[in-house]
Amino acid sequence: MRIETKTQKIDERLQLESGRILESYELVYETYGELNEDKSNVIVICHALAGSHHAAGRYGSEAKAGWWDKFIGDGKVVDTSKYFVICSNNLGSSFGSTNPLSIDPSTKKEYRLKFPILTISDIVKAQMALYEKLGIKKAVAVIGGSMGGMQALCYAIEFPEFTDTIIALATTAYTRPWAIATNKIAIEAIRHDPVFKNGLYDKEDLEANGLPGLAIGRMAGLIAYLSPSLFNEKFGREYSSKDGLYELFGRFEVERYLEYNAYSFPKVFDPLSYLYICKTMNIFDAGRNKDKLEDAFEKVKSNLHLIAFEDDMLFFPEEMEEIRDIMIKLGKEDQVTYKLINSKSGHDSFLVEVDKFEEHTRNILEGK
Amino acid sequence: MRIETKTQKIDERLQLESGRILESYELVYETYGELNEDKSNVIVICHALAGSHHAAGRYGSEAKAGWWDKFIGDGKVVDTSKYFVICSNNLGSSFGSTNPLSIDPSTKKEYRLKFPILTISDIVKAQMALYEKLGIKKAVAVIGGSMGGMQALCYAIEFPEFTDTIIALATTAYTRPWAIATNKIAIEAIRHDPVFKNGLYDKEDLEANGLPGLAIGRMAGLIAYLSPSLFNEKFGREYSSKDGLYELFGRFEVERYLEYNAYSFPKVFDPLSYLYICKTMNIFDAGRNKDKLEDAFEKVKSNLHLIAFEDDMLFFPEEMEEIRDIMIKLGKEDQVTYKLINSKSGHDSFLVEVDKFEEHTRNILEGK
Repeated sequence: MRIETKTQKIDERLQLESGRILESYELVYETYGELNEDKSNVIVICHALAGSHHAAGRYGSEAKAGWWDKFIGDGKVVDTSKYFVICSNNLGSSFGSTNPLSIDPSTKKEYRLKFPILTISDIVKAQMALYEKLGIKKAVAVIGGSMGGMQALCYAIEFPEFTDTIIALATTAYTRPWAIATNKIAIEAIRHDPVFKNGLYDKEDLEANGLPGLAIGRMAGLIAYLSPSLFNEKFGREYSSKDGLYELFGRFEVERYLEYNAYSFPKVFDPLSYLYICKTMNIFDAGRNKDKLEDAFEKVKSNLHLIAFEDDMLFFPEEMEEIRDIMIKLGKEDQVTYKLINSKSGHDSFLVEVDKFEEHTRNILEGK
Repeated sequence: MRIETKTQKIDERLQLESGRILESYELVYETYGELNEDKSNVIVICHALAGSHHAAGRYGSEAKAGWWDKFIGDGKVVDTSKYFVICSNNLGSSFGSTNPLSIDPSTKKEYRLKFPILTISDIVKAQMALYEKLGIKKAVAVIGGSMGGMQALCYAIEFPEFTDTIIALATTAYTRPWAIATNKIAIEAIRHDPVFKNGLYDKEDLEANGLPGLAIGRMAGLIAYLSPSLFNEKFGREYSSKDGLYELFGRFEVERYLEYNAYSFPKVFDPLSYLYICKTMNIFDAGRNKDKLEDAFEKVKSNLHLIAFEDDMLFFPEEMEEIRDIMIKLGKEDQVTYKLINSKSGHDSFLVEVDKFEEHTRNILEGK
């Protein structure tokens, strides 16, 4: 599989939903496989909150493959020997695309808290501008889970001609207060971290000392992305050290897991990006106002394939069922499929239990 | 209903499960109704993490009644015209009973982080010492929810002669990693709050500036205590101000709710107490080692009434069912009842949906 990472500068104004404008911006993107001559073998992959453009494969001596490597590759469901797969880093994210630490061309300084609020639509619109630069007019499919699934829905509604096949996993048509509440822990923990300095943190300070607030916010995420039964299975009531029981800060295995994964997070993810992306997710509403969801889905021309996970505790299966029901109500029952996966890894099932929806998604892509 | 609040000093050593000793300690407790002559009309109420001895009624001009006022009072289920009800503030809690800010008699200084780790058994043992001081040998019933339910189970196992009737609501026989993870957010947020100063915080500083870490920990609790559907119903996607949508920190109603309830919490609850009580809950295991749960429940002589709540996302109904199943396996099927309530307020249902288990618990207390 051929992997390439590139940066596309786009010197065109991006009119944002908020009314603000990005005069120019950059998107980092990764591609897998070969674009065919008539550019008709493109599959778009959209990533989630903490994901990046690095969706599959390994670079050089990299220990860990891209985040959806089980799903994307030669001979895999998203078969890179057939398709040209493209995954771009979301606008606002901290893996290279324009984000709050980028230079604001009007002030020549980093945006920081002056960065504009982005919506899922804005992110998708920027991706569409990228495809235009690449001469790509249409995709075979757009696929994404969680926040990536929000983007997939947005493609279906706002760019109905772009693809005939949307696969949206573990997502929702509008973010409910339960998910907003989880993000709230992160928002408050980041804001109150003295290292954060109202967004004016010193990057070296952050690198040296970490940003516990972001780690704590990430912890709330790590809980919401998994499930109680998985926690039982994975951690039980074991201690990570023998003396944990009567020490105030004695660590259960589950605590060690949370610490390890949360405190390493600020090393790879920027707190301002985290705040902005939480906001993007929080305000996501495919109908802009949920009473108008039907108007939104009325626009859909592609086939919409919804995949929900039984033990998803962030975006519950009922949220996906609501989308299916709207499609049916609109007389689009031939354009929608819904599959509920008997999952055991909570919201993260779309990342780790690929074997459970492999055949289903392969059939979709092969038009069966 | 007659309410009294008293403090009992107990000048006897309390041998703790950790091996450490409290040379003396105090318990604040509240009573409702009148103790009859032969002291045979006592009902014990055990409170949860953030609760206090103030379980029912109002003092003077108090705006808010005690935390279980729907359940306890003249003519209510726990009928104070018949019973003498007693609720003591848990050892370690910050409402007056001995806690990390109390004076360590051996150093004449506040314990702070030198306070010993307490277990649910230690808390119950201290309560038993209080009853002895009051000349109470037996209770009609012991009732508690959540951490109070842990105490109720502990009475059943460790003081099997003390009462014939245990009612344990929304609780567990051993804390699972899912609940430990929720507490972990609080532990980490408190530890990293610069005001906390490794437990040596200045009380005036805390009063003046609050302790955001404790507020953020409380937020994690407020989410875990409720349920996704309640959040939908209660908050929807409303903003608390008109301009919220495109402001980074624009607040959804659910965010306002969390802020309001979380940031007021450090005004009434001490962060060290919170850490110690989280630890107490985290290490709770009625069997000390869950392989020995059967040995523990073998000791139970009372009737054990278990009440679980369908949408409890902290202590799941399966956890209560496990206790019922152990009782049945031990041939104690006549000693156990299990009721699953069709609740809508998550874990907090035991506090707010009293109407749904009122008749059931009334029948239990009336021996029907």
